[in-house]
Amino acid sequence: MNGTLYGLGVGPGDPELITLKALRLLRAAPVIAYPAPEHGDSLARAIVAGHLPDGQTEIAIRMPMVVERFPAQEIYDRAAVEIGAHLEAGRDVAVLCEGDPFFYGSFMYLFGRMAEHFPVQVVPGVSSLTACAAASGAALASRNDVLTVIPAPLSPERLRELLLNTDAAAIMKLGRHFAKVRDVLTELGLAKQARYVERATMPNQRLLPLDEVDPDSVPYFSMVLVHKRGEAWS
Amino acid sequence: MNGTLYGLGVGPGDPELITLKALRLLRAAPVIAYPAPEHGDSLARAIVAGHLPDGQTEIAIRMPMVVERFPAQEIYDRAAVEIGAHLEAGRDVAVLCEGDPFFYGSFMYLFGRMAEHFPVQVVPGVSSLTACAAASGAALASRNDVLTVIPAPLSPERLRELLLNTDAAAIMKLGRHFAKVRDVLTELGLAKQARYVERATMPNQRLLPLDEVDPDSVPYFSMVLVHKRGEAWS
Ligand SMILES: C[S@@+](CC[C@H](N)C(=O)[O-])C[C@H]1O[C@@H](n2cnc3c(N)ncnc32)[C@H](O)[C@@H]1O
Ligand SMILES: C[S@@+](CC[C@H](N)C(=O)[O-])C[C@H]1O[C@@H](n2cnc3c(N)ncnc32)[C@H](O)[C@@H]1O
Repeated sequence: MNGTLYGLGVGPGDPELITLKALRLLRAAPVIAYPAPEHGDSLARAIVAGHLPDGQTEIAIRMPMVVERFPAQEIYDRAAVEIGAHLEAGRDVAVLCEGDPFFYGSFMYLFGRMAEHFPVQVVPGVSSLTACAAASGAALASRNDVLTVIPAPLSPERLRELLLNTDAAAIMKLGRHFAKVRDVLTELGLAKQARYVERATMPNQRLLPLDEVDPDSVPYFSMVLVHKRGEAWS
Repeated sequence: MNGTLYGLGVGPGDPELITLKALRLLRAAPVIAYPAPEHGDSLARAIVAGHLPDGQTEIAIRMPMVVERFPAQEIYDRAAVEIGAHLEAGRDVAVLCEGDPFFYGSFMYLFGRMAEHFPVQVVPGVSSLTACAAASGAALASRNDVLTVIPAPLSPERLRELLLNTDAAAIMKLGRHFAKVRDVLTELGLAKQARYVERATMPNQRLLPLDEVDPDSVPYFSMVLVHKRGEAWS
């Protein structure tokens, strides 16, 4: 009997934001796998470090961490083979996913390679979308609001078009795209109500108004939230 | 010293999808409050029923459950007074929120009334957005995809415009709007790849292709997910 591949959402950073279900499956799995930078620690593993039992086999899926470089297919091909060997030997494998596995998560690249061949279960997690809203102290959307999730690498024209056509937006993957995003929001008269959230729920979380953010120091784990009415609840 | 108002995301239905943090705060609170229909049980309370300690004071915020009738302001005004009295007496109050409190949740109407007067903490939860994706076995979005969250009560023209202008969409609050949504998706050639998810993570969860859904029996707790490439990971 093949093992099961679990995609476990471990939440946005605070180790207490893991679900009971993800924690149970994480502890029971003989093998865990997680994305990691080329050198150094995996964020997903760090989030659950305090929960890990002894004696698990660990697979670090190491990826050159260049923002916006799309994941090298061969790295996932190789990880799929390594994980597949455990599954064929009857061992469950839990893949740790920062936030939620299916919300812009790299788990989907393993899922795409393995779901036809092995049983797969995805456990949803708290995503950065709602974690950033909670941290910012403002609701994302209400009633019949349209909420658009926008990756910051898009062109200024596309950002403008999307922002004009929505009630609320979450702009992700900021990094070096911050200044462009800020300029488009300013041009549209939305800068005042935009909220910048850095590393939500982590010990070094920061909240700033847009005009106090230094564009040269914006990390990848940050987001801008904006609601056209200022507050979703009004 | 005033008590703290907690907005606790309790997840989309499966009691195991609550976070450790929400569970800890829920158990410690002397007073809990939750939205409920005019008659009958509260979904948010039912989700955590197995976790509740004895002796908590409970406040049911009863609301006529007419889909799309926006919440009566007076009901929230009254709930804010009742909850405020506990906070002023130094008792923490935990408000139970299905899914995530700030993702189209009614918690924001209490938040709007109370955040200026009392300490408030929002604990993000697993939202229906990612729970439905996990249940459907397909990622919401990847890479530089735009993801639009669309309330089904919008007009067919607006639905069409939004769907044309995005890579992926989650269409919420279906109920009696299902046929309209299905027709717009069909017209745009997107019906084949659309996934209908009913009561994700609950015991009576159902997944159906669009053309097998009976429009007369679509509940409020359902969603349509669609990705233009068919699969986000491709
Ligand atoms: C590849 S996506 C992964 C999202 C993740 N799967 C989730 O569910 O949140 C990475 C982007 O998510 C956002 N993000 C993830 N965690 C975050 C956090 N703790 N605080 C702020 N933004 C975060 C950032 O915009 C970042 O560029
Ligand atoms: C008022 S919104 C509340 C959303 C909630 N705060 C959350 O974070 O998921 C209600 C809508 O959420 C969606 N929804 C909530 N729970 C769901 C579930 N378990 N399965 C499918 N859809 C759900 C439905 O589209 C429903 O009409």
